Amino acid sequence: MSEAATPGRHMTDEIGQQPAIFADLLATRGAIAEVAARIAERRPRFALLAARGSSDHAALYAKYLIEVLLHLPAGLASPSTTTLYGARPDLTDVLLVSVSQSGGSPDLLEVTESGRQRGALTVAVTNTVDSPLNSAAELSVDIRAGQEQAVAATKTYSATLLALYLLVDAVRGGTGERAAPIPDLAATALDSGRQAVDDAVHRYRFAERMVTTARGYSLASACEAALKLAETSYLSARAYSGADLLHGPVAAIDADTAVLALCSTGRGGDAMRDVLRAVDQRGADICAIGSGAGDVPAAHRIPVPECAEELAPVLEVLPVQQLALGLALARGEDPDHPRGLKKVTRTR
Amino acid sequence: MSEAATPGRHMTDEIGQQPAIFADLLATRGAIAEVAARIAERRPRFALLAARGSSDHAALYAKYLIEVLLHLPAGLASPSTTTLYGARPDLTDVLLVSVSQSGGSPDLLEVTESGRQRGALTVAVTNTVDSPLNSAAELSVDIRAGQEQAVAATKTYSATLLALYLLVDAVRGGTGERAAPIPDLAATALDSGRQAVDDAVHRYRFAERMVTTARGYSLASACEAALKLAETSYLSARAYSGADLLHGPVAAIDADTAVLALCSTGRGGDAMRDVLRAVDQRGADICAIGSGAGDVPAAHRIPVPECAEELAPVLEVLPVQQLALGLALARGEDPDHPRGLKKVTRTR
Repeated sequence: MSEAATPGRHMTDEIGQQPAIFADLLATRGAIAEVAARIAERRPRFALLAARGSSDHAALYAKYLIEVLLHLPAGLASPSTTTLYGARPDLTDVLLVSVSQSGGSPDLLEVTESGRQRGALTVAVTNTVDSPLNSAAELSVDIRAGQEQAVAATKTYSATLLALYLLVDAVRGGTGERAAPIPDLAATALDSGRQAVDDAVHRYRFAERMVTTARGYSLASACEAALKLAETSYLSARAYSGADLLHGPVAAIDADTAVLALCSTGRGGDAMRDVLRAVDQRGADICAIGSGAGDVPAAHRIPVPECAEELAPVLEVLPVQQLALGLALARGEDPDHPRGLKKVTRTR
Repeated sequence: MSEAATPGRHMTDEIGQQPAIFADLLATRGAIAEVAARIAERRPRFALLAARGSSDHAALYAKYLIEVLLHLPAGLASPSTTTLYGARPDLTDVLLVSVSQSGGSPDLLEVTESGRQRGALTVAVTNTVDSPLNSAAELSVDIRAGQEQAVAATKTYSATLLALYLLVDAVRGGTGERAAPIPDLAATALDSGRQAVDDAVHRYRFAERMVTTARGYSLASACEAALKLAETSYLSARAYSGADLLHGPVAAIDADTAVLALCSTGRGGDAMRDVLRAVDQRGADICAIGSGAGDVPAAHRIPVPECAEELAPVLEVLPVQQLALGLALARGEDPDHPRGLKKVTRTR
C-alpha cells in the first residue's frame, strides 16, 4: 500500500479514461493507416506476435484478427526459443508484431532485433514512442493511452486492442468504420453495467476459485480477466477456451467454482451455449459478461452494448476491469500497487 | 465411480507401460523417418500445430523443437478461427501438424481438411491409425501407445512427445540417437522418484491452490501438470511460463500456494532460478521436479534422471503423472473416471 491516498484511485481514473482514449485513437487513425500501408506493400505471408503478460492477450486477439480478416496464418512467438536457445529461424515474408505497453522488456527487444536481422518486417506496438522496442522495430504503432500509473494494466490493454484492430483493418484496406461507435459504446458500457458489476462484487467477494472462459475473439478477454483478477484480487483464476474446458478441466468445476463467461453476440458467444450448459450441470455459479450474456445459462449477467463481433473484446473488458477493481477493494487490497509487482518486468 | 475394481488401476498400469512404449517407438523409428523425409523434401517455411487438451501441450513442445532444431517459425493454430469464423488463410509452404490421440475431434478434422485444401502439407499424429484425422491428412505418424483406458491421458501424452521429437529430429537428418537412453531412463525415473512422489502426495494432500511453472521446453510439462492435476484431483491448478509469472500472477502467490516447478538441467532450468527466488520470497511452498531440481530454491524435490534438455519433457512428466494419480487416490477420487469427462470430446 503506499503513496496513493485512496486505494485504487489510479485504476479507477484510468478505467474512466478509456472512452476518450478510444476517440483519440480513432481521430488519429491516419498514423496507423500509414503503418498498415507499409505492411500491405510488403505482402507478408505469415504473422508472429511477441508479447508478455496482458499484452500477450492483446496479441492473441490480434492473431484471430489476422487469421480471420487478413487470411494469413499467425502464431504467438515464444520469446524463450530466441532468448534461451538462440533459435534463429528464417523470417523472410514474416510480419513480426511485438506488443508491449512499456516497450522496455529485454526479451521482446531481443526477439525484435533478432527477427529484423532474419528478414521479418518488424512492428512495435507500444505506449512509449521513444522506447528501445520502437527503435529496434522498422515500424511503430503508438497506442496513445497516456501514462498508466496503476500497476494493473487497464487503458493500455484496451487501447492496444483497438490499435491492433485499426491496424489489421487498414492492412486489408478498411477505414475503421466498424469501430466508429466504440467510444460512445464504451461510455455506455462503463455506466450501464455498473449496477451489475457491483452485484457481482458482492456475489464473488468470498469466492476463492474462479474459471474464466470464452471462445473465438473473446478468448483474449477471458485470459485478461483471469490475469487481472489474479494480480489485483489474488484469486486463483484460470482461463480456458470453451472448447478446451470440455476436454478435461470441466472435471474440476463444481459448486465452489465461479465461472466468468465472456459471451458476445456472434459466433464465439453462440458456441459458448453448449459449454455453459455442461458447466451449469456441474452446479457452478456462472457470471455471463457481454452482449450475448442474455442467451446463455447464467446465475448472474453483466450486459455490454452490442458491436461488431471482432470489436467485442474492446468493450467487454471494461466491466471485467471494474469487477477486478471492485473485488480488490472489497477484499481490502490496493489494486494500484499489487504486492510484489513492478510495472516493467525484466525477464530474459 | 464405476466398473474398474480398483480406483486408478488403469492409470497405474498405463504409467508403468511407458518405458516399453518408448523402446518400441525407437525400434520402429523408421516409419517416422519416412514421414520426416517427405516433410524435408517439401521444405516447409512455416509450421502450424493444431491440438486440444493434453495434445495441445505436446504441440507446444513441438513448437519449441521446430523453432530451435529446424529454424522454422511455428505457431499453435486456433481451430476456432477456421471452425467458427471460416478463416481460409493461404497455407502454401506451411507444415500443419494435427495432434490428437483419438484422431476423432471434429474441429481438428475440419482444420486439417481445410488446411490441406489450402496448400498445407498436413501430418496427423495420433494413436489411432484408422482415424478420420489420419484419412484427412496427407501423412501420418502412429504413436503406437496401445489403447488407453484411463480417461486421463498419460502414455499417449509421453508417446506423442517422443514421436514428435523423433519426427523433428529426422527432418533435420538426425537418427534419434539422443533419445536412445530414454526407455531406460524412464524406468529409472518411475522407480527412483517414487519415494519423493509419495512424500509430495502427503505434502499436498490438502493443498487447494497450485501453480505450475517452467521455462523453455519444460513449459509443456508445466501446462500438462496443471491440466492433469485439475482433471484428476480437481485442484485449482494453473500453469505459467516463468517469465509471465513475474509479470503479474506472482502477486497471487503466497504461503497458501503450492508451486510445482519443472526444472531440467539446461537453459530452461537455469532461467528458473530467478523466478523461483521471487516465488520463494513470497513464502510459497515450492516443489521442484526435474534433473535440475537440486539447483533451485525448493521445499521439496522430485529428482528425474538427466538427458538431453530437448528430451527432458518426456521424462519429467512421469513423476507428474505419479503425483496426479497419488493425489487423486489420497483425496478419494478415481482418476480412471474423472467426473464429467469423456475420452473424446466433440467440440466444433
